[in-house]
Amino acid sequence: MPIILGVDPGSRITGYGVIRAEGRLIEYLDSGCIRVGEKPMAERLRVIFQSLATLIGEYRPEEFAIEQVFMARNPDSALKLGQARGAAIVSAATSGLAVHEYSARQVKQAVVGTGGADKTQVQHMVQALLSLSRPPQADAADALAVALCHAHMSQSVRRLSGAGRVRGGRVRG
Amino acid sequence: MPIILGVDPGSRITGYGVIRAEGRLIEYLDSGCIRVGEKPMAERLRVIFQSLATLIGEYRPEEFAIEQVFMARNPDSALKLGQARGAAIVSAATSGLAVHEYSARQVKQAVVGTGGADKTQVQHMVQALLSLSRPPQADAADALAVALCHAHMSQSVRRLSGAGRVRGGRVRG
Repeated sequence: MPIILGVDPGSRITGYGVIRAEGRLIEYLDSGCIRVGEKPMAERLRVIFQSLATLIGEYRPEEFAIEQVFMARNPDSALKLGQARGAAIVSAATSGLAVHEYSARQVKQAVVGTGGADKTQVQHMVQALLSLSRPPQADAADALAVALCHAHMSQSVRRLSGAGRVRGGRVRG
Repeated sequence: MPIILGVDPGSRITGYGVIRAEGRLIEYLDSGCIRVGEKPMAERLRVIFQSLATLIGEYRPEEFAIEQVFMARNPDSALKLGQARGAAIVSAATSGLAVHEYSARQVKQAVVGTGGADKTQVQHMVQALLSLSRPPQADAADALAVALCHAHMSQSVRRLSGAGRVRGGRVRG
């Protein structure tokens, strides 16, 4: 199972989390925040792109997970969030990572067990699942949560595709 | 006066235009469209980034001009447009280009002479100003228009800053 980079982009703070998932064992590697709030727009995007490229060079993840955005608050904040997402996704895609998107509901379901969980519950469960000494900062926790969601979903898909092969054999026989 | 790359990003079609401005002489170098409409989202953004990086490598512009977005239609299209803008701006910023933004009104004012011009007038004036044999495709014309706007504004700034130095001398004297 590969190393996964989870990212929670924002126009001011971009959270990131890096985990390694071996079967059911999940290992915490790194997490943190890229803070760009005070810089001009183009420089913010360059720093998001470059910081993630540096992380990708350091940890060599094969998979990149990011939360889908369904309902942005308004067109102006959606545009700014889109720009930050674009910078983050391009950093992953130009490094050859597979990009996976999950809805907020899928992420909460995978990490807390219910799609309606709040941010504090996500932080708490991320800390517990990764045996961290303290809860990660909120954006870093969201980034770790989407990485954990991807690890969980990939395992489910592997289990399903294994079952699929068994069923396929029966039909052919 | 440097080579200017103008870009009109979109989630399906990104127009680009490259001009060289020497004083009042403007030379057309290249223009066209990057079409990514059929690809998955991450691949679209990678192609926008990579195509612009290739153009930057070929023409070595020093300046990058892009239209400001004031009122996107709705949060969903603003997010998609933002992602395409993010990919384009990161391509320029990581190549060390200075990024300049102009409002649609500034672009139309510079190219057509009135801030309320329509798209056909912009295409027509871009063709005339650059002595092109036919009007460029709409997105390429918008990209050339924002590059022309930047050339115009840089000249105005230079003229003003020249005048500023004269006035400055008088005050000091």
